[in-house]
Amino acid sequence: VASESFKRINSVFYPSSIAMVGASPNLYKWGSFLLANLIKGGFKGPIYPVNPREKTIFSRPCYPSLAETPGPVELAIVVVPVAHVKKVITECIAKQVKAILLITSGFSEAGKAGHELELEIAAMVREAGIRLVGPNTMGIINTHADITVTGSHTRPLRGAISLVSQSGNLGGQVLGWAENMGIGINKFVGTGNEGDVNVTDMIEYFREDETTKIILAYFEGVEDGQRFLEVARKTSMEKPIIALKGGRTSAGSRAAMSHTGSLAGSYPITLGALAQAGVIVAKNPTELIDFSIAFQHLPLPQGNRVGVITLGGGWGVVASDECNERGLVLPELPEEILTKLDKLLPSFWSRGNPIDLVGQINPAVFRNSLEAVTSSEAFDAVLDLGNLGTSHFMYRVVSTVRDIDPSFDPSIVQIAINEAAKLEAGHLRDVGDFIAKYNKPILTVSHSEKLQYAIPFGDNVVVAYPTPEKAIRALQAMLWYRNWKAGRTKPA
Amino acid sequence: VASESFKRINSVFYPSSIAMVGASPNLYKWGSFLLANLIKGGFKGPIYPVNPREKTIFSRPCYPSLAETPGPVELAIVVVPVAHVKKVITECIAKQVKAILLITSGFSEAGKAGHELELEIAAMVREAGIRLVGPNTMGIINTHADITVTGSHTRPLRGAISLVSQSGNLGGQVLGWAENMGIGINKFVGTGNEGDVNVTDMIEYFREDETTKIILAYFEGVEDGQRFLEVARKTSMEKPIIALKGGRTSAGSRAAMSHTGSLAGSYPITLGALAQAGVIVAKNPTELIDFSIAFQHLPLPQGNRVGVITLGGGWGVVASDECNERGLVLPELPEEILTKLDKLLPSFWSRGNPIDLVGQINPAVFRNSLEAVTSSEAFDAVLDLGNLGTSHFMYRVVSTVRDIDPSFDPSIVQIAINEAAKLEAGHLRDVGDFIAKYNKPILTVSHSEKLQYAIPFGDNVVVAYPTPEKAIRALQAMLWYRNWKAGRTKPA
Repeated sequence: VASESFKRINSVFYPSSIAMVGASPNLYKWGSFLLANLIKGGFKGPIYPVNPREKTIFSRPCYPSLAETPGPVELAIVVVPVAHVKKVITECIAKQVKAILLITSGFSEAGKAGHELELEIAAMVREAGIRLVGPNTMGIINTHADITVTGSHTRPLRGAISLVSQSGNLGGQVLGWAENMGIGINKFVGTGNEGDVNVTDMIEYFREDETTKIILAYFEGVEDGQRFLEVARKTSMEKPIIALKGGRTSAGSRAAMSHTGSLAGSYPITLGALAQAGVIVAKNPTELIDFSIAFQHLPLPQGNRVGVITLGGGWGVVASDECNERGLVLPELPEEILTKLDKLLPSFWSRGNPIDLVGQINPAVFRNSLEAVTSSEAFDAVLDLGNLGTSHFMYRVVSTVRDIDPSFDPSIVQIAINEAAKLEAGHLRDVGDFIAKYNKPILTVSHSEKLQYAIPFGDNVVVAYPTPEKAIRALQAMLWYRNWKAGRTKPA
Repeated sequence: VASESFKRINSVFYPSSIAMVGASPNLYKWGSFLLANLIKGGFKGPIYPVNPREKTIFSRPCYPSLAETPGPVELAIVVVPVAHVKKVITECIAKQVKAILLITSGFSEAGKAGHELELEIAAMVREAGIRLVGPNTMGIINTHADITVTGSHTRPLRGAISLVSQSGNLGGQVLGWAENMGIGINKFVGTGNEGDVNVTDMIEYFREDETTKIILAYFEGVEDGQRFLEVARKTSMEKPIIALKGGRTSAGSRAAMSHTGSLAGSYPITLGALAQAGVIVAKNPTELIDFSIAFQHLPLPQGNRVGVITLGGGWGVVASDECNERGLVLPELPEEILTKLDKLLPSFWSRGNPIDLVGQINPAVFRNSLEAVTSSEAFDAVLDLGNLGTSHFMYRVVSTVRDIDPSFDPSIVQIAINEAAKLEAGHLRDVGDFIAKYNKPILTVSHSEKLQYAIPFGDNVVVAYPTPEKAIRALQAMLWYRNWKAGRTKPA
């Protein structure tokens, strides 16, 4: 049963109708590019642009006031200048909207008068039973309701990762990466000045939100640290929270005070307190996204023993160093695997972990090595380096040959292209199959710049990183979370 | 005056003519894709494919033997199976080639017999005064002579960065990144088993090579550590060496032994010894490329005081944390800058470092802030976060508006596109101008996934990173090198 708090915030993300007060045809105004973004996103309910000076915007009818919109409004998006906000909030209350997204800036972040106005508005909406996101926010996304209203204009795929960020520009960066890497996002909210809804409310909401499987959070300070840690602890038992804390150093904390000044007196959440609450701590924005993809698509490792299969020796060495430095171990290969691989690999093969395939692009060798390691009780996780993406190389060769010799037999070229595609598909299928069959994480690393991080294949999604170190950091984070959970669930 | 050693290795990179012994029309063979790659690269001298079973390859004449090629051969690229290599080396000596690139594998890495054959071949070429790269190498690139012969088939732009790698797959990864990021490469060599030419020889060669300004090196072990460190120290005084050492942990070193087995007994070069020799130590392959671009295009910082200008607050906080953790400081803004910026920024601006432009996309504000900080004696380096790449956002908006409203006034759309392009160009010009005018590094960080790392603009190149942490790590590396050099050049 959903809590009352959940139901009320739900009106932000699943409204039956949306009005945009302050809609504009001027491409340089938030009321214009937010509206365009919202329409383009494909929201199924009615969208009512409101602006007394326009009859139509983007060839759609525009309404002179919120009161004159031809139906009920569940979510009001407000982008009018700060001087008009209070009046519009009154209109929102009269219209009986359920939620407000207040984009407008010029409140707490702009000084004392702004701060007082923010408090006043917060009191008004609280009394009316309306939840308000903002002010001074970058916007929201809910891919599950086709809602995309952000300043950054990113439009990621639908997925299970939800993000709350106190910083709009950091949120925009993470969303942009997600879009480019094919990483599915569920919901995004920039909490801005947190006049009403704050980062803790959002983590609580995401915990109850069934389609959210992974929670990402960027925050610099929180008003009520005790409640934050309680909510985080309860949530971490159900789904992972991956968080980046801004202001962890003295310089960063000075910058954070100036950035989100209203939180200057807020509870100092330390990295240690976060870890105790089961929060997976990222060191920078990139790690937020790098970790999320592993958590979204892979089972957790049950221990720290890693088997490495590599197409080339250098990556095997680099991966060994990184594993060693991150608390992951590379056990020697058990006898049964040595025996299996002796039959598959050249006589001079390394007979060690990492298993170096010495450049052999042979689907059978790859599949058998991968299954031998993944199925073995000697390993908790598998790194697969450089095998995925080899088809990319063949496309390059074919393109070169066509350039230098237009008379080259086209049927041979076609066979090469077909074989490359088959190789890649086979590899994706094998990785996905073995993850499912043995319930063990396989993290792949690819040379190809064309590959996404998350590659859908049949019913599976294969996770492909551009470097061994990214894969290994993600694996370390998963193992940390698995151990935290295990410690929590063991009898005391 | 070039050394004798330099002149001899020079035949590898600047041959007047090239033969490929073992050329093949079969797209799956090295003799095929290497030849195609070489032809496509545009090498100006004659290229002689050699294969007794083919009359033509890629519609070009093929010769039955090295002896029968119709002119002198300076560089012989050898890709025949290991069993034929010794015979071909004899033919190379008879043909009086100056250098050999021996791609073929199956030598030291394949066991005792291979190791002995490798020693035998090395002795043969040494006696004949021929320099040999390989065996078991990924190939070479010299963009300054239009030579591209690598298994990885990457084709980076021409530049000043030269790379030596004991691992072909790691070299290929770095070259692929360089190509994708618009980073100019000068020369690449995979030293493979180092039967003759080794990583130390290559660093020595790159030191003398005038067009090489930055040296990148990946290595796991070296035969003669004393000589390596002497060469590195001498080279570091003239140009930076950025190195990644594989096998720095026990697991990594075990993997390295198995990867480049012949070096098992080699001198253990520690990170401390590298640092004493002025070598900038990268922690992973990504840092090799991230650092190289800053060293290639920016003046060294003269101290650790950083001024940060950011379009959004979150990045300012993250950057402050990262600077703090990496020994860089963010001094308060001097009075003169406060006075200047009070006139430009909204009354509620942060009045601190980072300078938060609170999303104002105003070229004059940006230019004046950037010049104020760059010209100030209070700062040694500048981070410019999020200003570059804002045009990308406008292109997205325009594309959305065209989608949702095909009747939207096209002249307004065109103006928006023009303004965005002008904004971006102006920003690039400002950054380039101020770096040159004040001889101080400005590292930019951009939201746009379309941006390259190295953006040519007029006579300048602007360095743009995708994240603050990458820019800050590169700045830390530059400062480290500057301090090492200063310590060396100060009177004792």
